[in-house]
Formats: sequence, C-alpha cells, structure tokens
Amino acid sequence: MLLSPAAGRAPARTTRPELACGPGFSSTFFKGSALRASVAQASGRTGRAQILIVRADNRPIIIGMAADSGCGKSTFMRRMTSVFGGSPKPPAGGNPDSNTLISDSTTVICMDDYHSLDRYGRKEKGVTALDPAAQDFDLMYEQIKALKDGKSVEKPIYNHVTGLLDPPETVKPPQILVCEGLHPFHDERVRKLMDFHVYLDISEEVKTSWKLQRDMAERGHSEESIKASIAARKPDFDAFIDPQKQYADVIIQVLPTQLIPEDKEGKVLRVRMIQKEGVKRFSPAYLFDEGSTISWIPCGRKLTCSFPGIKFFYGPDTYYGDEVSVLEMDGQFDKLEELIYVESHLSNTSAKFYGEITQQMLKNSQFPGSKNGTGLFQTLVGLKIREVFEAIRQTTVAPVV
Amino acid sequence: MLLSPAAGRAPARTTRPELACGPGFSSTFFKGSALRASVAQASGRTGRAQILIVRADNRPIIIGMAADSGCGKSTFMRRMTSVFGGSPKPPAGGNPDSNTLISDSTTVICMDDYHSLDRYGRKEKGVTALDPAAQDFDLMYEQIKALKDGKSVEKPIYNHVTGLLDPPETVKPPQILVCEGLHPFHDERVRKLMDFHVYLDISEEVKTSWKLQRDMAERGHSEESIKASIAARKPDFDAFIDPQKQYADVIIQVLPTQLIPEDKEGKVLRVRMIQKEGVKRFSPAYLFDEGSTISWIPCGRKLTCSFPGIKFFYGPDTYYGDEVSVLEMDGQFDKLEELIYVESHLSNTSAKFYGEITQQMLKNSQFPGSKNGTGLFQTLVGLKIREVFEAIRQTTVAPVV
Repeated sequence: MLLSPAAGRAPARTTRPELACGPGFSSTFFKGSALRASVAQASGRTGRAQILIVRADNRPIIIGMAADSGCGKSTFMRRMTSVFGGSPKPPAGGNPDSNTLISDSTTVICMDDYHSLDRYGRKEKGVTALDPAAQDFDLMYEQIKALKDGKSVEKPIYNHVTGLLDPPETVKPPQILVCEGLHPFHDERVRKLMDFHVYLDISEEVKTSWKLQRDMAERGHSEESIKASIAARKPDFDAFIDPQKQYADVIIQVLPTQLIPEDKEGKVLRVRMIQKEGVKRFSPAYLFDEGSTISWIPCGRKLTCSFPGIKFFYGPDTYYGDEVSVLEMDGQFDKLEELIYVESHLSNTSAKFYGEITQQMLKNSQFPGSKNGTGLFQTLVGLKIREVFEAIRQTTVAPVV
Repeated sequence: MLLSPAAGRAPARTTRPELACGPGFSSTFFKGSALRASVAQASGRTGRAQILIVRADNRPIIIGMAADSGCGKSTFMRRMTSVFGGSPKPPAGGNPDSNTLISDSTTVICMDDYHSLDRYGRKEKGVTALDPAAQDFDLMYEQIKALKDGKSVEKPIYNHVTGLLDPPETVKPPQILVCEGLHPFHDERVRKLMDFHVYLDISEEVKTSWKLQRDMAERGHSEESIKASIAARKPDFDAFIDPQKQYADVIIQVLPTQLIPEDKEGKVLRVRMIQKEGVKRFSPAYLFDEGSTISWIPCGRKLTCSFPGIKFFYGPDTYYGDEVSVLEMDGQFDKLEELIYVESHLSNTSAKFYGEITQQMLKNSQFPGSKNGTGLFQTLVGLKIREVFEAIRQTTVAPVV
C-alpha cells in the first residue's frame, strides 16, 4: 500500500528513481544507504524514488494550511515564504498548471492534487470537489509521510484549468513543506504528520464579496451565477471543509467590519487570529497583557487615522472546546507609522527584532490585504512558523532584512 | 474690606493676634517684621492675626475639592493626607463641631464655614444652603488669599449640627490647604487661588443609594423623607453646585456598574477619573498606551475574579469643551494581587515606586470604597497632588512607607 495510488485513482502511475535533494536542502544532510520503496504511479510519467535516510533534525517540518479556494492561500504563502527568504515559483520546466510553489527553503503543495476523481469522474459519481469521496487520503498520507521522512515523491497534479489529473511531478523534501488545500486536516493520519496547522476562515459575506469582485471583473461571470455557485458549494463546504478548523493551531478568521454600521461595501475587514493554547512549540501573540481581555483603538491623540479607524481586540476564549487566545484587528492602516506603533504593543510575536513585522509588511506591501489584519496576521503566522521550525530543527534562521 | 466679614454675616467678630505657625510649618520659614491686618470678627472669640511675610516657595499650595454633602469628601481627605503622612484630626481643644481637619502637613477647611446665612437666616430669606446667596465669597476669597500668602486667619465655623454660625477658629497656613465644600469653584477669584481643582461627581442613583443606606440605618429617616429631601435639593444643586465641575482639573465620577445588567443593589460602582489635559504641573495617568482608547478586563487566565469582575477603560474625550483623558474602573477588587497587577499596567501615576498605590490602598483598606474605583482614584489624586506640591515648592516629599 505504501506510496501506491488509492483504488479508484485514475490514471495509474509507475515509479521512478529520484534523489531526495530539494532546494536549499544540502545532500550533506543525508547519510546511510539508499532504500527502495514503491512510489505513486501516474500516467504519462514514470519514475522510482531513491529513498535516503535523513538525519532526524533535518527532516522537513510540515505545515498544514486549510482554506476554501479563492481565499487568499497564495498570498498567505507568499508572505510566509518571505519570512524565510526567496519568492515562491512553480517548478522550473514542469507542468505550467502545476499547483506547486518552490522557494529557497519552502515547498508548497496543493492537496487538490490528491483528488481521486477528476471533474468528469466527480460529475459521473455526483460528488463535488469538496467531498472526501473525491480525494485519495491514503496517497496523501503516504506521500506527505515520505516527504517528512526526507524522501522525494511523484505527486499527482490536479489541473484546475482542465479539471483533469495530469501526469505527476517530482517533489523533493524541502526544509519546510506547506500542504495547502481543501482537506489537509480531514484525515487524522495526515493531520498528525503536520507540525503546525493553519486554517483560513473567510466568512460567507466576505467570501461572496471577494468572489464577486474577482469573478465578475476578471472572469466576466454574472452576480447571479457566482452566488448560485457559492450556494451550491455550501452544503459540502459546511460538511467537509469547515469542520477542519477545529484541528487548527491558528485560525485566521475574516469577517466584515464592525466599525461601519451595516457596511455593504465589504472593503474594510475585521480579522481575528484565533490561537490555540497549549500547543507544543507555539505560544500565542498578545496585546499589552497576556491572558486578560483588551480592546484598543490606537487612533487618538498620538495617531490620527482616517475613517473608520482601527480597533484591536485581544482576549481569551474557547473554540471547539479548546482554550484559545484571540487577537483581532478591525479596520485598516493608513500609513507606515501605524504599523510600527501597533507592533510596539504586540508581545510574543516571534519577531527577531522590534520592527520586523513592519518591515515584512512593507516589503510585501503590494500583496492583497497589506493594510488590514489579513496581512498582519499572515505575517505573524509566518514568524510563528519560523519559530516552530527553529524549535524542531534546533537551529536559528537569520531574519531576512 | 480685607478679611472683614461680609455684610449680613451674623454674629459679628473681633480680631485677635495669631502667629502663623501651623503643624509641620517651621517658623524658620518666616522672616521680616510682623504686619498688621484686620481679621474676621466673630462673637464669643476674639483675636488678631500676626501676619508674617513668608518665603514665596513656602507658601501653602491650595487644593479645591468640590462635592455635594455626604459624597465621601472626608474619606477622600483621609486618603489624600495619608499620602503626605499623618492622619487628619480636628483642631485640638477647639470647637467639637469644627469642620476643620489638621494633619502633619495638610489642613482641610470646609467652605460651608463661609455660609453668610445660618439655617434660620436661610429659612427667612427662602434660600437653600446650596444657593450662592447664602455664601460669603468675599470673605472666602480674602481668607484663602491670606492663607496662601502665609497668614493665619480667623475662619468662621458653620455648625452642621445646630445650623448656626459658631465663633471663629484660627487657621494657620499649612503646607497644603484643602478647601472642600459645596462652592469652592463658584467664585472665580477663589478658584484662581487654587493650584489644583478636584470635583467629586456622584451620580444621582449612587447618591440616593448612599443616602438611603446612611440616613435610614444611622439616622432612622424614612425612605420617602430621604428621597423627598434629595428631590428638594436637586434644582439648586443643578444650578449652583454641578456646574462647578467644568472648572475641575480632575473629576471623580461615580456611577452605577455596567457589569450587572439592571443592577438595583448599587453596591458595585463604575468610577471614572476625568483628567483635564494641558493643566500646568498635572499630567494624566493612563492605562497601557497614552492617548489611545483601551478597555481592559484583567480577570482572565492570570487573574480570576469573582462576579461581576473588573473592567477598566482609558481614552481621550472632551468635557465641557476641554480635552480630557478618562480612566475608568467598573467593579471591585477581590484581593491584594489584583491591585498590584492593575498598578503594573498604569502609567504616569506619580507614584514614587512600583507598588506605592497598592501600599496606600492596603494601608487604608478600612476606608469606604477601598475595593472599588473611588479608593483607587482618590489615591491617584493624592499622588497627583503630591506632584503638584513638589513642583510648586521645588521640593521632594519622601513617600510614606
């Protein structure tokens, strides 16, 4: 069963040898003799992985990132990899529709690649892409496990453009493997391979507003068709995607602003970073005073903000029965100083120096959400992931200046 | 006119000589020849003040403290004098109904002593004790001015028990003169003599609840008679007392709690310390971050509080058209740790060491309001007054440990 495609997966794959030596992953980290294992088969491309024993402290750390499609995962990824250096790019010379992104030390793979049914298969069986019945969790588990063990894999590609399963691509174990997609936490085995779990929770109002904006402007869809498509996805989303957030260590929740009564425009966002307490290697960031409940409007005498201003909140709560600490930002930044001013009152951010968050945000100011809490909290999560990485690898990552 | 009783004041007084040498006020501070001046006359007691020239930097500082009767002025005074050392006592060997309190460096005089009409005179003229027509502001001004200049005065005594004007008592210039009562800020000349102005603003609900508690239990009055008396005072209170709060540098506002919906008991209080900005020698205390708006519930993971907990607020506001900073505490302390924990997040308190506020509160824990914001903010105002004193006198007051 190891690394073989799940029953029902089409088309079949063959194995091919592959040296585990991803970007930024020096071969000096490997030692011992090569071992053999069967690798997932895929039509059109054959290969067999050469499996090497990796020093335990050099095995990749695995980050899970769950979210609905069109929810800003790629921006999140770009912010995260920016903390480690480099910018994520598709695999050189590979399938142009590959979902994989590779940067200096990070590889992002998309869990949609583990669809067991392509668009036509799903249609035939009457299941949506959100349905676990359309995923191959065995293969997902086996390949992520192999990568975690320092082995390369031949990962299938789900082509979002054609809706077909394309020939597989080689994924080498990076220092940090990010598994993003619809179902990274659905399967307990997969979930347990992950060192840190992030869920992007976009509220229905915001999701609709984003999709309308993107799909009407860029893809020429009508408002009705977009709304109908969201409504059609909702039952399966609620049944299979949404429940995964209970397994996340951090949830970034994106809601409409509360600063503008009855806001219809949906441009100003209230973003909450829900941080689970008691997670190994992860200690929640806080505002002013750990463990108490605080709301903070920094705009005032020292800082003037344009309408509707900014409001922060921090406090303990429970989430699916777990103790959490919530950090919240409603509104958006006008200018640079506001960022550094806010940073001065945040504690336990895992920044390596005062100003690192502001610097990261400025460096990526062209990314969507840079002025609101999505950008801030994505950056914070990036710093937290760096800390998890350092703790597991017993190493120090130099800040990217 | 200087130091002479106002027209209509009865009974008449004679002058008598008096050496300006109050408690804690060394005669070495005085130099030059004695000057003569007429002093307020009073029946049954005669005297003439010996007026001495005082070094400018040793002149008393004058604190005004306005509040309705039964609003906790004496507790406030006790907390304030506690900051400077000693406990306030009536003048030794004087009128047992004297309203004056003397401690090591502070003398508290009551502005009611400047009633120009006694209870019978007021009844005859149809004015209440709250009416400026029943006060002698000329004498008030002249005597406070004389004290500020380092001269002793023969201050009349309004006997709250008999309702009569008793023979005067000698008041020597202390280091700190507190002028408390109903009308300390009504007269502009008097107001301008004062170096710091405090107003105790007890909301009608709380005032009623306090008066019911005190007058029913201790004085055997009926609820109806107490409520009728409050209602009868209200028009003059609103017309003559309440407007003085616009002149205060600090207003301590006492309101019903917002932590218990529809609270009827009135035991839990929401207390606001409204601090005027731009006042010479006075810089408002703040919570966490100066100039922004913050609400803080310290009870949580680190600190467990019993129902209904504690909630703090800090933020800028306007008050009678002036810029103010408001510090607010709703609820009450359970135990010691809460105090020191709160103190650790307050800034610009004018405390001389971390823990001084807590220590002061503990020292006076038997005073009413020690567990709520009245005690905390009275203590804070005491520290602020010490700072004003130090700035004017160019001296340092050792903290009372």
